[in-house]
Amino acid sequence: MKKRKTHGNARSIPELIVHKRSGGALSKEEIAGLIEGFTHGDVADYQMSALLMATFFQGMTPEETTALTLAMRDSGTVVDLSKVPGIKVDKHSTGGVGDKVSLCLAPLVAACGVPIPMVSGRGLGHTGGTLDKLEAIPGFNVSMPVAQFVKQVRDVGCALIGQTADIAPADKRIYALRDVTGTVESIPLITASILSKKLAEGIDALVLDVKVGRGAFMKTIEDARALARSIVRVGTLAKKRVTAILTSMEAPLGFAVGNALETAEAIEVLLGRGPDDLVECTLVLGAEMLRLGGVAKSESAARKMLSEAIRSRKGARVFENIIRAQKGDPRVVAEPDRLPRAPRVVGVKSTRSGFVTGIDALEIGLSAVAMGAGRTRADQAVDPAVGIMLHKKLGDKIAKGEVLAEVHVRDKAAADRVCDRIRDAYEVSPRAKKILPLVLDTIRK
Amino acid sequence: MKKRKTHGNARSIPELIVHKRSGGALSKEEIAGLIEGFTHGDVADYQMSALLMATFFQGMTPEETTALTLAMRDSGTVVDLSKVPGIKVDKHSTGGVGDKVSLCLAPLVAACGVPIPMVSGRGLGHTGGTLDKLEAIPGFNVSMPVAQFVKQVRDVGCALIGQTADIAPADKRIYALRDVTGTVESIPLITASILSKKLAEGIDALVLDVKVGRGAFMKTIEDARALARSIVRVGTLAKKRVTAILTSMEAPLGFAVGNALETAEAIEVLLGRGPDDLVECTLVLGAEMLRLGGVAKSESAARKMLSEAIRSRKGARVFENIIRAQKGDPRVVAEPDRLPRAPRVVGVKSTRSGFVTGIDALEIGLSAVAMGAGRTRADQAVDPAVGIMLHKKLGDKIAKGEVLAEVHVRDKAAADRVCDRIRDAYEVSPRAKKILPLVLDTIRK
Repeated sequence: MKKRKTHGNARSIPELIVHKRSGGALSKEEIAGLIEGFTHGDVADYQMSALLMATFFQGMTPEETTALTLAMRDSGTVVDLSKVPGIKVDKHSTGGVGDKVSLCLAPLVAACGVPIPMVSGRGLGHTGGTLDKLEAIPGFNVSMPVAQFVKQVRDVGCALIGQTADIAPADKRIYALRDVTGTVESIPLITASILSKKLAEGIDALVLDVKVGRGAFMKTIEDARALARSIVRVGTLAKKRVTAILTSMEAPLGFAVGNALETAEAIEVLLGRGPDDLVECTLVLGAEMLRLGGVAKSESAARKMLSEAIRSRKGARVFENIIRAQKGDPRVVAEPDRLPRAPRVVGVKSTRSGFVTGIDALEIGLSAVAMGAGRTRADQAVDPAVGIMLHKKLGDKIAKGEVLAEVHVRDKAAADRVCDRIRDAYEVSPRAKKILPLVLDTIRK
Repeated sequence: MKKRKTHGNARSIPELIVHKRSGGALSKEEIAGLIEGFTHGDVADYQMSALLMATFFQGMTPEETTALTLAMRDSGTVVDLSKVPGIKVDKHSTGGVGDKVSLCLAPLVAACGVPIPMVSGRGLGHTGGTLDKLEAIPGFNVSMPVAQFVKQVRDVGCALIGQTADIAPADKRIYALRDVTGTVESIPLITASILSKKLAEGIDALVLDVKVGRGAFMKTIEDARALARSIVRVGTLAKKRVTAILTSMEAPLGFAVGNALETAEAIEVLLGRGPDDLVECTLVLGAEMLRLGGVAKSESAARKMLSEAIRSRKGARVFENIIRAQKGDPRVVAEPDRLPRAPRVVGVKSTRSGFVTGIDALEIGLSAVAMGAGRTRADQAVDPAVGIMLHKKLGDKIAKGEVLAEVHVRDKAAADRVCDRIRDAYEVSPRAKKILPLVLDTIRK
């Protein structure tokens, strides 16, 4: 049992825990000492988890959260992108269902001249992950040495990789601990987890897509706003330009849910044929990235640049370059049939006529996991080919017997397991309801 | 990282933590599963410490605390005293300075016909421990097999031992965890810790001495009452008769602070020569034990029995029998000079004239620790011979230059380290103050 003092601090570790437990604020040095001690084994797991639970109840000041973020960032490699010209901007989404925005957004923004050093995650639970979607592209490699990452951002304008063991290792360990100790849902801890990784990428600015609703981590606009405000505040204290955009995640984004299906849909956006909501989400986030990246003065100017990058296929070309640089098959952009496809497609038919007034993103996401498109444990593999294609979206008219969605499966048994669930995820009403806007709020410094 | 379900429970361990964190109550089965899982390694230290911190904030219902107490009791051996006739009663003190009550109380109550199976602890921090005081008696052995413990309670009427590895091992591990994770100060956790050990002794009834004040764990009467009520309530739910008596611990109890000095003073009580406050504390707690033990109908009848056991030396004889049974030298009762004595005695003189209106028990306790009479870490040894003899008590008149206290030390340097501190622990005022009563409250079912 460890009770010894942390380096250069008057308070012992239990005293620091009691101080936080009693509502006190920890100093920058105390927080740095705790994270350093945790990294080197002087602060035990059981002490960190007690501190995390105390933090859940007592919160942290923005200054404490900033100190935690920077200490976690500094627990590993901080990528030096100073030799890459331009303002380096990244986007982070808190996770949703059908959220394949990164795959079309990053090439488009890079095509407009803003360098994108993007470190993404894998899907877990009902939400998908960018890395799983990228890996649906034959040969695509999401890991590379830091030097190569820097080189690719400079040469191609964008690199899309996974978190390496070197990037914010303290965050990795603390997140694993939070996951099993009931301490996930804490605004300062979420803030530090997201920002520490992003700051370690060497970015100058960040656009955060805070998903709100049934299919999101944040179920209410209040919780989403609190997280958004915290990240903008702490990002600003860490001297970065950060904008948070709250977008709806009641229903899935786009039509596709499942890795290869989503990658194909993101390519559709790059080719000017993407679904309205997905295109809009890409333009809104992209416009803010261009603004923060200093290449557009206004939102409307930025949107024009992005639309032009779609029309000219410049975004698609950048995506091909990224895929090529990362050992994938760039022909998937022109020939999406090269992506893995499930052998069977089964329709899910409506038992009622009316209007689609709701599509439960959480249920659709969980159905996709049940089909093998996602994972319930971090060590599971995913099947890139399987997934769900929605045929009807919010506001659409539907007749009894008409197809609501299609499931892409390996065998009929897999379809049988999820068809009812997908049908039940659809709310069909006699009258159409007003569709809420995609963008719910924007929070800047 | 352990996320698997506990046996026969629907909720996983992180879900149970979140449930408690959110203010929910855990079922008897869930608590039993958590303690069993912790004992067998299925619940990790870091999960237990998060749960303990969540419990600190959200508390527990009396039913939850009872389930926790019983699960911790059942983590090891539960002594079967059913073959010892009579109602078995124990006393527990939350700890104070100069609190040697157990040493005179147990023999006196046993002499009155109530069997006492007493499992005590060691001193830690500023408070002393019964085991350290008993070990000041040459040869005295505080550990024995359970069968011998049962036999001694039956044959001698009382056994005074330390917590064995078999008694409530879950409490031992949880306490060690609480000590280093800032989760000590929680009423349900303190309740379960105290009661699980006491119930594992095989008792039928318990008198709890809740010390209140500067030198106690509970600094305020409100905190002490909350703990007392919790223990009485949970003890009752566990089908035991429990009374809690709140006694003042602003000033040390008796004159002696330090192991051999305190043992000698406890013997003085048995011989009818004890200090007033110590005798009164012994009689109050003892009377309640005789009442709960069913050998006295009223407090006054019980006090008469105890006074008679002093007058007749029956209590002293029982103490000799206990010492003999536990391999100690029983001659210390008649010849206290056989106890270890420090080579030097140095007086602490008053720099002022007036009345003693305060003796800071915490400062006196910490001074004793600084002299080697106590320990700051559980693995430290204590010096049985050293300590402090107060010469002046609350209300006493003192003249400048008169001796307030004497320190019993190995060398002059040790005396120099504490004399000022002891002097400063005395509050000397021109006018006498009203002395608060020893007994502050009594809480029964």
